[in-house]
Amino acid sequence: MSQLLKDVVGELSKLPGIGRRTALRLAIHILKMEPESVGDMTRSIDRFRNEVKYCTICNNLSDEDVCPICADRERDHSTICVVEQVADVLSIENTHQYCGLYHVLGGVISPMQGISPSDLKIDLLLDRIAGGGVREVILAISTSVEGETTLFYLMNRLRQFEGVKVTSIARGIGFGDELEYVDELTITHALRNRREIE
Amino acid sequence: MSQLLKDVVGELSKLPGIGRRTALRLAIHILKMEPESVGDMTRSIDRFRNEVKYCTICNNLSDEDVCPICADRERDHSTICVVEQVADVLSIENTHQYCGLYHVLGGVISPMQGISPSDLKIDLLLDRIAGGGVREVILAISTSVEGETTLFYLMNRLRQFEGVKVTSIARGIGFGDELEYVDELTITHALRNRREIE
Repeated sequence: MSQLLKDVVGELSKLPGIGRRTALRLAIHILKMEPESVGDMTRSIDRFRNEVKYCTICNNLSDEDVCPICADRERDHSTICVVEQVADVLSIENTHQYCGLYHVLGGVISPMQGISPSDLKIDLLLDRIAGGGVREVILAISTSVEGETTLFYLMNRLRQFEGVKVTSIARGIGFGDELEYVDELTITHALRNRREIE
Repeated sequence: MSQLLKDVVGELSKLPGIGRRTALRLAIHILKMEPESVGDMTRSIDRFRNEVKYCTICNNLSDEDVCPICADRERDHSTICVVEQVADVLSIENTHQYCGLYHVLGGVISPMQGISPSDLKIDLLLDRIAGGGVREVILAISTSVEGETTLFYLMNRLRQFEGVKVTSIARGIGFGDELEYVDELTITHALRNRREIE
C-alpha cells in the first residue's frame, strides 16, 4: 500500500466518527479533487486552528477579540443565553428567534472527566453580570446528568444578583417526535409543564 | 459566526458524507487538537494529493512508478485480479489470501455517467496480458448493472487470449448474512451455484 495513502488514511481516521474505511473513501475523493481545492481546504483548516480566537466577552469563537454578536449594537445586551459549546450558539442563531447575547461555558461540570467549575468560563459570566445592565440570564444547558449539575451550580451562583431573572429553556416533546419513542423523563416533564390552550 | 469557522465548515462539508453538522463537529475537534497534529494532518493531505502516482503496470496508487505489489518478485505474476477501484485492492489484500497481482480499472462502464470502456484502464490490461506470462485473469467486479456490463465487456475482449483462463469471484450468501434479509437475486445465484458437501 502506498505510504502516502497510508499516512493520509492514518491522519484522517484520528478524527471523531471517521474510521479507516471512511478515511480511505475520503482519501480517494481527495484524489479526484482539483489540487487547488485540496489546497484551499487544508489552508482553511490550518488558518482556523492557528488564527481563530475566543471572544473575550462571551467565549464564543471569533476572528477578533470581540465576536460579531457581542459587538452588535442592534442586539439586546440585557439578555444573556448561557450554552455549553460553540455549536449551541449556531443552533440557536439558526432559528433567527433570539436577539440577545450568549455566553459559552466551554463544557459542563463533570467530576468523572475531571471538569470542575473553574475549568469553565463561569467566573467570566459572573463578572459580566456584575458589570451591570443584564436583566435576564437564560440557561440553555443540556439535560444530561452533568448538564443538570451545571444548571444547579449556576442557579446557586446567580442567586447573588438581585433583579436578574434566571430562566431555563423549556423541556418537552420535540416537534416531530412520536410520543411512543420519547423517554419517560421527557414525558413526565412535558406533562408537569403542560399549558392551557388559548 | 467567525469567518475562519465558516470557511473550514464550508470546506469540510464539500467532502462526501460530511454535512454541515458533522463539519462543525470536526472543526470543534480540530480546535482541541495540538497545532502540530493539525499541521501533520493537513500536510499529509497535501502531500498525498500532489505526490501520489498511479502504478504504470496495474494503475494502483503508488509512491513510485511501479507499486510494491507489481514490484514484488515473491508474488504470482501469472495471475491478475481485475478490480474497479483502489479500495478493492485493499479489501482483498486484507484477507491475506491472494498472492497474485491486480489491475485497477478505475471505475465501471456506465453510459448514464458517460463512462465508456476507453475511460477505463482496459487497454492497459489487454497490453499487459498480450505481453505474455499470464495464466489466469480473475474478474472481481461488483454485481451492479454497470458492473455486469463491464464484466461482459471484459469477457468478450479477453476471449482473444487463448490459454488464459478467465474466472469471476463467487457470488453467494455472505458469512454472517441472514437468509431472511438477503435479496432474491443473491439467493437465486447461491442456489444455482450450490456445492456438494465433501
